Amino acid sequence: MGGNSIGKEFVVTFFGESHGRCVGAVVDGCPSGLSLGEKDIQVELDRRRPGTSKVSSPRVELDEVEIISGTFEGFTTGAPICLVVWNRGAESTAYDIIRNKPRPGHADYPAHVKYGGFNDFRGGGRFSGRTTASYVMAGAVAEKLLSIIGVKVVAHTIEIAGIKARMIRDAERIKKQAEENLVRCADQSAAERMEKAIMKAKEEGDSVGGVVECLVEGLSAGIGEPILDSLDADFAKILFDIPAVKGVEVGLGFDAARLRGSQNNDQYAMKARRVITTSNNSGGIIGGLSNGMPLILRAAFKPSPSIALKQKTVDLQKMKETEISISGKHDPCIVPRAVPVVESAVAITLVDHLLRAGFLPKVLGVKK
Amino acid sequence: MGGNSIGKEFVVTFFGESHGRCVGAVVDGCPSGLSLGEKDIQVELDRRRPGTSKVSSPRVELDEVEIISGTFEGFTTGAPICLVVWNRGAESTAYDIIRNKPRPGHADYPAHVKYGGFNDFRGGGRFSGRTTASYVMAGAVAEKLLSIIGVKVVAHTIEIAGIKARMIRDAERIKKQAEENLVRCADQSAAERMEKAIMKAKEEGDSVGGVVECLVEGLSAGIGEPILDSLDADFAKILFDIPAVKGVEVGLGFDAARLRGSQNNDQYAMKARRVITTSNNSGGIIGGLSNGMPLILRAAFKPSPSIALKQKTVDLQKMKETEISISGKHDPCIVPRAVPVVESAVAITLVDHLLRAGFLPKVLGVKK
Amino acid sequence: MGGNSIGKEFVVTFFGESHGRCVGAVVDGCPSGLSLGEKDIQVELDRRRPGTSKVSSPRVELDEVEIISGTFEGFTTGAPICLVVWNRGAESTAYDIIRNKPRPGHADYPAHVKYGGFNDFRGGGRFSGRTTASYVMAGAVAEKLLSIIGVKVVAHTIEIAGIKARMIRDAERIKKQAEENLVRCADQSAAERMEKAIMKAKEEGDSVGGVVECLVEGLSAGIGEPILDSLDADFAKILFDIPAVKGVEVGLGFDAARLRGSQNNDQYAMKARRVITTSNNSGGIIGGLSNGMPLILRAAFKPSPSIALKQKTVDLQKMKETEISISGKHDPCIVPRAVPVVESAVAITLVDHLLRAGFLPKVLGVKK
Amino acid sequence: MGGNSIGKEFVVTFFGESHGRCVGAVVDGCPSGLSLGEKDIQVELDRRRPGTSKVSSPRVELDEVEIISGTFEGFTTGAPICLVVWNRGAESTAYDIIRNKPRPGHADYPAHVKYGGFNDFRGGGRFSGRTTASYVMAGAVAEKLLSIIGVKVVAHTIEIAGIKARMIRDAERIKKQAEENLVRCADQSAAERMEKAIMKAKEEGDSVGGVVECLVEGLSAGIGEPILDSLDADFAKILFDIPAVKGVEVGLGFDAARLRGSQNNDQYAMKARRVITTSNNSGGIIGGLSNGMPLILRAAFKPSPSIALKQKTVDLQKMKETEISISGKHDPCIVPRAVPVVESAVAITLVDHLLRAGFLPKVLGVKK
Repeated sequence: MGGNSIGKEFVVTFFGESHGRCVGAVVDGCPSGLSLGEKDIQVELDRRRPGTSKVSSPRVELDEVEIISGTFEGFTTGAPICLVVWNRGAESTAYDIIRNKPRPGHADYPAHVKYGGFNDFRGGGRFSGRTTASYVMAGAVAEKLLSIIGVKVVAHTIEIAGIKARMIRDAERIKKQAEENLVRCADQSAAERMEKAIMKAKEEGDSVGGVVECLVEGLSAGIGEPILDSLDADFAKILFDIPAVKGVEVGLGFDAARLRGSQNNDQYAMKARRVITTSNNSGGIIGGLSNGMPLILRAAFKPSPSIALKQKTVDLQKMKETEISISGKHDPCIVPRAVPVVESAVAITLVDHLLRAGFLPKVLGVKK
Repeated sequence: MGGNSIGKEFVVTFFGESHGRCVGAVVDGCPSGLSLGEKDIQVELDRRRPGTSKVSSPRVELDEVEIISGTFEGFTTGAPICLVVWNRGAESTAYDIIRNKPRPGHADYPAHVKYGGFNDFRGGGRFSGRTTASYVMAGAVAEKLLSIIGVKVVAHTIEIAGIKARMIRDAERIKKQAEENLVRCADQSAAERMEKAIMKAKEEGDSVGGVVECLVEGLSAGIGEPILDSLDADFAKILFDIPAVKGVEVGLGFDAARLRGSQNNDQYAMKARRVITTSNNSGGIIGGLSNGMPLILRAAFKPSPSIALKQKTVDLQKMKETEISISGKHDPCIVPRAVPVVESAVAITLVDHLLRAGFLPKVLGVKK
Repeated sequence: MGGNSIGKEFVVTFFGESHGRCVGAVVDGCPSGLSLGEKDIQVELDRRRPGTSKVSSPRVELDEVEIISGTFEGFTTGAPICLVVWNRGAESTAYDIIRNKPRPGHADYPAHVKYGGFNDFRGGGRFSGRTTASYVMAGAVAEKLLSIIGVKVVAHTIEIAGIKARMIRDAERIKKQAEENLVRCADQSAAERMEKAIMKAKEEGDSVGGVVECLVEGLSAGIGEPILDSLDADFAKILFDIPAVKGVEVGLGFDAARLRGSQNNDQYAMKARRVITTSNNSGGIIGGLSNGMPLILRAAFKPSPSIALKQKTVDLQKMKETEISISGKHDPCIVPRAVPVVESAVAITLVDHLLRAGFLPKVLGVKK
Repeated sequence: MGGNSIGKEFVVTFFGESHGRCVGAVVDGCPSGLSLGEKDIQVELDRRRPGTSKVSSPRVELDEVEIISGTFEGFTTGAPICLVVWNRGAESTAYDIIRNKPRPGHADYPAHVKYGGFNDFRGGGRFSGRTTASYVMAGAVAEKLLSIIGVKVVAHTIEIAGIKARMIRDAERIKKQAEENLVRCADQSAAERMEKAIMKAKEEGDSVGGVVECLVEGLSAGIGEPILDSLDADFAKILFDIPAVKGVEVGLGFDAARLRGSQNNDQYAMKARRVITTSNNSGGIIGGLSNGMPLILRAAFKPSPSIALKQKTVDLQKMKETEISISGKHDPCIVPRAVPVVESAVAITLVDHLLRAGFLPKVLGVKK
């Protein structure tokens, strides 16, 4: 049981439901002395919220964050930071139809079994994609910490509906280009085709999936722990914790399995008195530790399970087969909105490991 | 820091080095009353050890397990079970060459940085593949617990050097067929081609990688925790903790990202009064919870980084570029030996979640 | 770092400050299906809040709880329960005097050092006794769970200002008698003397301390874990986590150290087919495990450090000696208000251990 | 379940039984670069082992430690350190009498219930005082780390059989004087009377208890975490985890509850440009944080439950009342042997908090 916390030094606890009072996060272990206000978090939340483009759900979720503990006079105090977004205007009545009819591809059925039917099923409740706002709130704190030591975390869409973007591995450039289109893809030409594929699926009452890649620049070598708290393993865990993720790769990922050792090994060289590797197939992590090269992580998102098309399901009360068609304002593709969630997840785990390795101070300066 | 333990109720701690005194594991949280002797563990260790086939390293590691705590009169007592395999006959002198010359693809360099040069570099030390014996020891205990409640965990090789096996998704059949060849692949014809590819790489002083798939049958719906201790996320973590894993997928994995929602969603139906899904694209996990269908997990292993071919590296003392050629008896392909390691990893995490969900008793019967 | 969570299966995370927005608690791991509403928690909070008697602070803290996640249609859902009490009407201006002048006996000075001066010092901030409202909120959930399996947790004042109460060890009777006076002491005659001692200290601008005893009835034998998660050790931890606690005893406590083994050992006998001990010097815990007898725990509270009398302190900015006199509405004795806090602490740890031992179900029934 | 590990960054896992193969400890999270050999640990183990004086058990336990992982070329590597003492010459046959007859004051009965009778009952098994050798092994590593930053942990006997020693609060002097007598009491005159009281109890087939005080000098202010990982709470937990401890106090402890606030508050002053308190009633911990003054901790040990005198018990198989008389070589007083155990417990928790607060480096220097 338990299960809603992650991290060892930078401990993040999530709470909240899709149609309950709120979604929230407690960030425990944030160094004191970080300048932090609601607007630092709001800017990231705004990237995640729907209703901002034709490729996402037309639902309007205002998603205003409130910091209800842990800051004082504009700085973090070292005490746990509780962050809340109040749910507003969610219509729950539409959901009564799913009380006993689990939607295919959603957690409705196993949640019903696990909790003896007491789970809040409205909009998926605790299992809703809406809970990823917790990632973004906590992630915004983590990203602000990372900026202090010059570490950049940048994610972007690299594939939607089978359409792959050209490979770009420059954080600065991605950051700029990906925000120029609705799908958050740094390759504008691919982005256009992705948009079209999404709109087509939408018109047909269907949905599409995709892949998000995340780059981390500026990380020293030697971050991570061996064997059971590997850096890559901790990234994989927090990425798989994001609803809809079905695969995670580091560096070449599955393609590494198709190479020879002589092709895949990243050989060492010296550059400006620093040790580098001449390739980065490993994605910056070897033996669970960072090697000083940029990190490369990828997460595969399945197509959103909420589709208008009729699907087979069962009535859990009558234990009989039946059908369901999901109305409501759903995302035909969650990938663009997942981009800030992936960044947040990576930032949270990174700060935890940096604190564990002693690479982030526990106190950021002294208050005058 | 820390980082050598995993699990919340079934807590496993690993220790040991490749060329130190031993590799070991402490299993804490095992229910009392499980019949357990050294031979239960030895049979699994024997599947992992090298020297047993031409496709693995010709090193002879006897790998005899000793249970040094936690059992009494043939049963587990509820106390922590410490399991040790003593290292024998390891020649360390050959390794002095790598003291300051990190081997490409190994953890040597980031470990050197992280530990200020104090890490035991011999054979990779704490980061050696040899430490996976700890997985197998702890996994053998977990698998014995699972057998009590009729849960089967079966892994097998499905790809080596780009050669893919036909898809087989029947635990019983896989179990039988995979042990009939040296690469642990249930598809005999693919197995033959894989063996050849390995031998060819070996002759050329090179290595190949591959993919292991793991099937879990007999699991109830509702196992797992939402959001931050998802069942799939915990599997991803422990699988990525295995050295050389670069990718993990659940169900269709990355391929799910290329489907429409209407294709990917597993629809519900009734069968023999039980709720089932008519397809299993999700790999038995939805929203971080098991849905009662078989689990399907995959891990991609990079080619073994230990190759005879000359590679570029740096001298960390002189901070100068140099070269290295790794002699010694190495595995041209670690995938076949990784099969029992993957099973162990999955079993360890499964037992932890079953205990957390209350699906495994804390005491197995009463002693007469 | 971290440090604001406790428990392994019933994981409680506290947040909030004395003069910030709120004090709160996240309860993660509560079984689903528990009937829970705000009034279940409010009744316990009302016992803790000040302004209700002449022996406590005349500050009026309304302390209304809000459940902002984790319940649905009147029942717990299995999701984390976030509980919040909003701070109202706290005047912070009075506290500016302590920004650089630590109050003797308070955490002001070490907190200033630890957090580089960024800590919220108003009213002690994160270290304020006000944060014990978090204990009471989470404890109310735990106590409701315990009532399901017939376990009673009852605390009462047994000593104030050196005045000791007659020993009463009957939960029912204590529960009734202790609520009949302002100091929550089941011995009415001692209670009167305690009240007088408090009023006298108050008049003199001073404060007094005391001892709270907690009884647990209805617990089975065999709850707890050996050696490093002993039941008594976990009680000691959570009790010492309550501000102002300086000592904890189980059973005879320090007096056991003055007895012979033959006097102190609790001998076994049979009663109504159950194994009992003929005395209960151990306080119901042996080797870290419950033995089926009532638990007896005691916590010593120092006198409240907030006193009107002038005291010596230092100016942390000028690094010079100076003086301080604490105005404001303070408790001359916190012991009566600590009684529900002690009950809550004990209940929280008990539920955690009952879940770990499998003595509490993860789902309480099935929803119709 | 689980329950045999403690610590967040310096994570210690204990295993082993009184009459099994061994007692052991895994120390995970020790910084790399600490010079560590078996003799560093042996010297502390020798202080704990029996057979060395007339006031302890005449059993001869050689207790030779073996470091089986985590060091290389005389230094810690950053990998988990596994430490083992092999059990030798334990006669288990004498214990068959207690298989179904629980000894009063021992964990036999609740352990029997908890583990369904599968527990190793010989000599108390997992619950034996012998398992405190694990504390001492792990503690020796912690104490060596503390010595690097000039922190001294010194415990000594301050009371046995009701005989109290004069108060001495000087670590250097205690260290020297306490080792000059068999009871480890720094007050020689009290020590003589204590010895006599022990010998008298021994002759009468009985046992006596006592109190150990521990002093920590050289600690900075600001170590610890607020509310749920208070420094004092973590000390209380690890001390109560030691078998036979029934009470823990910090500073004045229960006596603080009898003082006025004006008497108990430690007022601040400047001394050599440092902030000090003019008294140390708090025992160096305020609000869960160290305040820079010496730490003062006390643990009460009950009289050893193993006594030769006949006692009442029950036969758990027949569920009938019966009697038991414990033969064998037992300690008439465990307090002198508990002194190094208390030091170890305190050192383990201190290192954990120092690492969490960033006061101990993760790497001790760079290897040449």
